[in-house]
Amino acid sequence: MTKPVLASRTELADLMGPPDANNNGTVFGGRILQMVDKAAGVCAMRHAGNPVVTVAMDRVEFLVPIYLGELVTVEAQVNYVGRSSMEIGVEVYAENLDRGTRRHTNTCLVTMVALDKKGKPRRVPGLRLRTPEEEKRWSAADARRKSRK
Amino acid sequence: MTKPVLASRTELADLMGPPDANNNGTVFGGRILQMVDKAAGVCAMRHAGNPVVTVAMDRVEFLVPIYLGELVTVEAQVNYVGRSSMEIGVEVYAENLDRGTRRHTNTCLVTMVALDKKGKPRRVPGLRLRTPEEEKRWSAADARRKSRK
Amino acid sequence: MTKPVLASRTELADLMGPPDANNNGTVFGGRILQMVDKAAGVCAMRHAGNPVVTVAMDRVEFLVPIYLGELVTVEAQVNYVGRSSMEIGVEVYAENLDRGTRRHTNTCLVTMVALDKKGKPRRVPGLRLRTPEEEKRWSAADARRKSRK
Amino acid sequence: MTKPVLASRTELADLMGPPDANNNGTVFGGRILQMVDKAAGVCAMRHAGNPVVTVAMDRVEFLVPIYLGELVTVEAQVNYVGRSSMEIGVEVYAENLDRGTRRHTNTCLVTMVALDKKGKPRRVPGLRLRTPEEEKRWSAADARRKSRK
Amino acid sequence: MTKPVLASRTELADLMGPPDANNNGTVFGGRILQMVDKAAGVCAMRHAGNPVVTVAMDRVEFLVPIYLGELVTVEAQVNYVGRSSMEIGVEVYAENLDRGTRRHTNTCLVTMVALDKKGKPRRVPGLRLRTPEEEKRWSAADARRKSRK
Amino acid sequence: MTKPVLASRTELADLMGPPDANNNGTVFGGRILQMVDKAAGVCAMRHAGNPVVTVAMDRVEFLVPIYLGELVTVEAQVNYVGRSSMEIGVEVYAENLDRGTRRHTNTCLVTMVALDKKGKPRRVPGLRLRTPEEEKRWSAADARRKSRK
Repeated sequence: MTKPVLASRTELADLMGPPDANNNGTVFGGRILQMVDKAAGVCAMRHAGNPVVTVAMDRVEFLVPIYLGELVTVEAQVNYVGRSSMEIGVEVYAENLDRGTRRHTNTCLVTMVALDKKGKPRRVPGLRLRTPEEEKRWSAADARRKSRK
Repeated sequence: MTKPVLASRTELADLMGPPDANNNGTVFGGRILQMVDKAAGVCAMRHAGNPVVTVAMDRVEFLVPIYLGELVTVEAQVNYVGRSSMEIGVEVYAENLDRGTRRHTNTCLVTMVALDKKGKPRRVPGLRLRTPEEEKRWSAADARRKSRK
Repeated sequence: MTKPVLASRTELADLMGPPDANNNGTVFGGRILQMVDKAAGVCAMRHAGNPVVTVAMDRVEFLVPIYLGELVTVEAQVNYVGRSSMEIGVEVYAENLDRGTRRHTNTCLVTMVALDKKGKPRRVPGLRLRTPEEEKRWSAADARRKSRK
Repeated sequence: MTKPVLASRTELADLMGPPDANNNGTVFGGRILQMVDKAAGVCAMRHAGNPVVTVAMDRVEFLVPIYLGELVTVEAQVNYVGRSSMEIGVEVYAENLDRGTRRHTNTCLVTMVALDKKGKPRRVPGLRLRTPEEEKRWSAADARRKSRK
Repeated sequence: MTKPVLASRTELADLMGPPDANNNGTVFGGRILQMVDKAAGVCAMRHAGNPVVTVAMDRVEFLVPIYLGELVTVEAQVNYVGRSSMEIGVEVYAENLDRGTRRHTNTCLVTMVALDKKGKPRRVPGLRLRTPEEEKRWSAADARRKSRK
Repeated sequence: MTKPVLASRTELADLMGPPDANNNGTVFGGRILQMVDKAAGVCAMRHAGNPVVTVAMDRVEFLVPIYLGELVTVEAQVNYVGRSSMEIGVEVYAENLDRGTRRHTNTCLVTMVALDKKGKPRRVPGLRLRTPEEEKRWSAADARRKSRK
């Protein structure tokens, strides 16, 4: 059984408010990572049709601050699937609602594993690649995986 | 100046967890209304390009329970604009991530007003209607508005 | 079996702080609706002596902003009972603690249903009306209910 | 200038849910103390008509557990006023909403001080005692205060 | 069986942010008491090797305000053990991270009781005193206990 | 001006409860990353004596689940300093309080930058290395930094 990439594509979004701020008045990096982890989890559950756990999160850079009052949107899609693991690519965007401008702020790669009822890794559906972009993401994830071994 | 409906269309989404539950193990109605208000606010700010406040929320029915572990998606779009007010239509969906099934749970109509820096109502852009569906929503909102007077 | 209105009258109150604010420095409409839903739920549970769920919330208007540092009090009482449903009337007040002034900010009507252990609607006690005010509320709720059919 | 005890009497109430629980499934003592501090603060602000800070909380005993799903009500009233300080007596009640039974769970005494705009202690109105009960509370607070010196 | 004081010594720490503030911009007394209760609970669980409940918290004074952006550290250690109860001494410190200065803000004494699986009090290990300071704390706790009877 | 590693060593700790859980009853990866980011921030502020922002977080692996009711301790120390940047090494431990066993669950490397009042990068004190372990961490960080260029 296989599923297309679009079937599990996930978008979470939230408005940043006072509890999300650090002492500089910008949003905590840890707050963004929490949304990234949640979006990757929903995306992986949609693909696997099973509970999942986070196994790793690749290096994330925070080059652009995010401000209170901005809308943070987190987009996750499956890049690659192994037997029971999935690499989820997550893009983070921040939108200034007054000016209507939106900027890309982070890219994250999250590895998740599907679990059966006893908490053991469980086979996930294959990934049906339909566009050159999706094939490129698959190859890059596969290369990363091999270089880590 | 006018803006199309699509330019402010807003989708917020969040995974329901233990803090969102009432004593029956289902999600609090008030938790859903909070997401509806937030989504309507973001949608109205995108259309107005200004801060907004909630002026009214129409009758909402909760006919279908939402469970913990489900993904709640809230979709908001501008139905109608007056001089400084906007009627935002909000649809709520709950998705069971294990089974991959999604159901429509609520429809809400929220009226918001744009404010200038002194907190006074401020003119908002017109709404460019492009589809028969958008025209139907405008007429229905206009009728509701007249019947309330 | 019947119960008087006073037996289930409910008052919740909380001080508004930074996490309750929107970007205008006033309190989110959704925050107020969450308190309204909670108060209506407690009131209905007191009357029914059983778990309850929210079935509908009538149109709510937000004509007066509520500020941080104000005490929000939410008063709920049963207006009407059907077989398993109850209409709860909820009044919201905001108090400025420095000046000692209190203003009425919202009126809400919430319909709740009592559930048995299997989650099926369950008969609720009748409502003993003791004052002309209580009788007026019952008639108004009954009229609303008939006009909705 | 004096104010009667009733003018600042304060009642906060909230339904206990999952985030309020410790690992035994009962409510954290610290959660109750937070409500006690908040209620005492609102009561003191109502009496003083000024911002206040907590100066001390007397020994509190937790002899009866409070369970999730119970309504906690916290009642605060001014027992005694000095020049800028106030002793607030706070009673905590927990109500089982299914059975309709309510029990007294804690008594706390909180000392608060009113502040002017520079954060210096500031004179508070006198307390008008109207009942023997209020006079008894005043005397007991006065005795505690003297025994601490 | 006995355990040394050091085996259960506990330190919790958290950075104070906007949700922890009262209307004066300083940290709520109730927020500090919540951290104190949590730290005492962890310390008591470490000593008892069992679930525990809070039985009492002695008079706490708040003589020094704590500001947003400060790091609050709460240090808890067992002072005394009875059959199933433990007195935990808790010290609170606030650190200004810009200036690198740290000040002692509160001392609290919390009594906790260990519970077995049925929620009944359960015997706790003895306390091995190793320093004159630990012996002094034991004697003071014992004296407090006797004077309360 | 230089500061020793120990001067900024930071330990945050918190008890995991219901709001920290994912749907498998274990703790969200994102919750842990939030504590890691906070601890790294406090450590960097202590070293820099100035506000800081997170610039990057290296790959983190989550090989061991953390359960509700466990105490999570996060230890941060400065590994390396550049002109205005600092690499903070963070170790995460989870402790089962009933059994008294503690296990190492994650290692994270966080890069932070100190800011002046205008939000521009600002020079930080040098790092005084006092042990072979500290020298080893410096060299490893330096090597990572060079390999990224």
